[in-house]
Amino acid sequence: MRRVVILGSTGSIGVQTLQVLAEFPESFEVVGLAAARSAGRLAEQVCAFGPRAVAVLDGETAEALAAELAARRCSPRPEILVGEEGYVSLAEHPDADVVVSALVGFSGAIPTLAAAEAGKTIALANKEALVATGELLLAALSRGGGRIVPVDSEHSAVYQALAGEPRAGIRRLILTASGGAFRHLSREELVRVTAADALRHPNWAMGPKVTIDSATMMNKALEVIEAHFLFDVPYEAIDVLLHDESIVHAMVEFQDGNVKAVLSVPDMRFPIQYALFAPERPANSFPRLDLARVGTLHFRAASCERYPALCLGYRAGKAGGTYPAVLSAANEVAVQALLEGRLGFHAVEDLLAAVLDAHVPVAHPTLTELREADRWAREEAARRIARAYSG
Amino acid sequence: MRRVVILGSTGSIGVQTLQVLAEFPESFEVVGLAAARSAGRLAEQVCAFGPRAVAVLDGETAEALAAELAARRCSPRPEILVGEEGYVSLAEHPDADVVVSALVGFSGAIPTLAAAEAGKTIALANKEALVATGELLLAALSRGGGRIVPVDSEHSAVYQALAGEPRAGIRRLILTASGGAFRHLSREELVRVTAADALRHPNWAMGPKVTIDSATMMNKALEVIEAHFLFDVPYEAIDVLLHDESIVHAMVEFQDGNVKAVLSVPDMRFPIQYALFAPERPANSFPRLDLARVGTLHFRAASCERYPALCLGYRAGKAGGTYPAVLSAANEVAVQALLEGRLGFHAVEDLLAAVLDAHVPVAHPTLTELREADRWAREEAARRIARAYSG
Repeated sequence: MRRVVILGSTGSIGVQTLQVLAEFPESFEVVGLAAARSAGRLAEQVCAFGPRAVAVLDGETAEALAAELAARRCSPRPEILVGEEGYVSLAEHPDADVVVSALVGFSGAIPTLAAAEAGKTIALANKEALVATGELLLAALSRGGGRIVPVDSEHSAVYQALAGEPRAGIRRLILTASGGAFRHLSREELVRVTAADALRHPNWAMGPKVTIDSATMMNKALEVIEAHFLFDVPYEAIDVLLHDESIVHAMVEFQDGNVKAVLSVPDMRFPIQYALFAPERPANSFPRLDLARVGTLHFRAASCERYPALCLGYRAGKAGGTYPAVLSAANEVAVQALLEGRLGFHAVEDLLAAVLDAHVPVAHPTLTELREADRWAREEAARRIARAYSG
Repeated sequence: MRRVVILGSTGSIGVQTLQVLAEFPESFEVVGLAAARSAGRLAEQVCAFGPRAVAVLDGETAEALAAELAARRCSPRPEILVGEEGYVSLAEHPDADVVVSALVGFSGAIPTLAAAEAGKTIALANKEALVATGELLLAALSRGGGRIVPVDSEHSAVYQALAGEPRAGIRRLILTASGGAFRHLSREELVRVTAADALRHPNWAMGPKVTIDSATMMNKALEVIEAHFLFDVPYEAIDVLLHDESIVHAMVEFQDGNVKAVLSVPDMRFPIQYALFAPERPANSFPRLDLARVGTLHFRAASCERYPALCLGYRAGKAGGTYPAVLSAANEVAVQALLEGRLGFHAVEDLLAAVLDAHVPVAHPTLTELREADRWAREEAARRIARAYSG
């Protein structure tokens, strides 16, 4: 019996996590659920999974949730917690073994740190939390005695590939990238695309933030930083390979020249289940990979000319300190502006590069310094977006 | 320091094993070398690697070897052993940790059994030994307390993919097959091909027996049986997939739908090194896999209509008892006849099916019963080949 808390239960990863749990009703208890403002959807989940506690972003949503639950008459009623404090209470809940960290953006960083201090197994989907607070999160994990099992398909693949392998044998991690919605376009052609175009991912069904990030390759840039922290591998030993089919999620090249790859149908439920159960692999009803039917797998080198965001990731990662937090925060603002039509798709990388250029870094930042860098980066990005559109 | 005996040191696997050892001169001692009749080549190896003992097939070769060594004046001179007894002495040599079993065909079975009884780590390249004596070899391993690390690229890949994985998680093994020299021909077109054509393998540099077996797919048939014994997986859970590039050597599909694949440049030195060092993966100077340069990997289903030999393997394996030994022995005779121009390439499978049909099996055979089945199968195959060509 695994006792689970899901932070971000109404988002794409949260919903799919509950689908995975529904496959194994005897093996799980849902201890807590947390979302931002989706009171209706959260109420449905509460009635279906009966958590002891829930957390939402603010008092208004808490009231809406209470009303939704009253209308549905499902029992027993969970305790309703509010705000960052509420998220943190769930993250360190004494009855939880596994905390699924699936809030989007920096907002998930504080509860993720709390789960780490509390020694939980963290099923980590919130890459921004790890990217921004990397050193702090690893230190908290080490103090708490828990572990991170990644939910990102690429990092799950690396994690799986490293099972049973001595660390000294690692030569290189290879993360694959679909290339996103615009992989068949040149940089020049990107001037004409819209946010709606960017939301049509060729292979994966995911939330809007990560789908946009796939099209710019900022997703892969953040994943490179994530891989650096998760697997303690230098940036020089982390490569990205374009792979159209999104079936090979990542590979590990070993010192002896053997390469281990992890494959599946592109469906987030596979890495989510592994994060919940690792190292066990119970059978599920999800679609199986049939390589004879797929027929062909393609691989190409990924260049910084075509995908400048990728190299912004390496740049911020190698520079370290507050740079990764700044890149990730500025990108959150850029994606929001893009979705709202206030920023052109082709302008994202220049904006992010300008924010990195303007940043005055702090090495080995404290949480307060990271919060400050995050705030600065958001304001700086917003200022630059506003200026570009007013000018 | 690993102390190594190589049975079959002058064959393709033996020579490549010595190439691997030459990469790590500080990590190995060659305790013994064994070959059949290649006195000259063996003498060269003795001078280069200084084993304490060598074994050859007969007294004549032993004399030739002594003469070669005297002429070369390298010292110290190894003890020269003769015949099956000589091979067995090396296989159970008290100073050896790892025994590389790379004699071709059933001749390697007795020394491999001896190595197993003696508790050695067996780097197993001689698939016929395992196919023929499967149950006996596993029982001997279990008594001796040693282990088999496979050298076949497919089984090495499965072995690597299973590292760190709970057994209950295995759903299916998938062995890949290049399809051999004639993969682009239909069955009808096989009537015109020659043994020389069959010896042109598209991807691998290997000995003549295994190269012919790749073209008929008997190699894969034997590998399916080998996989059954090595990994204790039922035949229903072992599949074969055609894969043109021979880069993905095998895959394991887990119960949870994730698939782990092991890849490398098609070069036997990779699985040989892993068999010698597992689970360590020291760096070598061999060519690295560059998937961006390879570009494309192809996969197709393998059918029994096109490759009847494949299904003879499943048939003999599932029937068990003496059937796998009979299939393997009859195939050795067929390959020899094919290489000598006494049997057409397209006639191999019908011959093997007829020998299986005519066989009176023994369940759970003793070594004596296996020797007898082996002898019978060779005679039966030879009789049928002679009859077909005289008739």
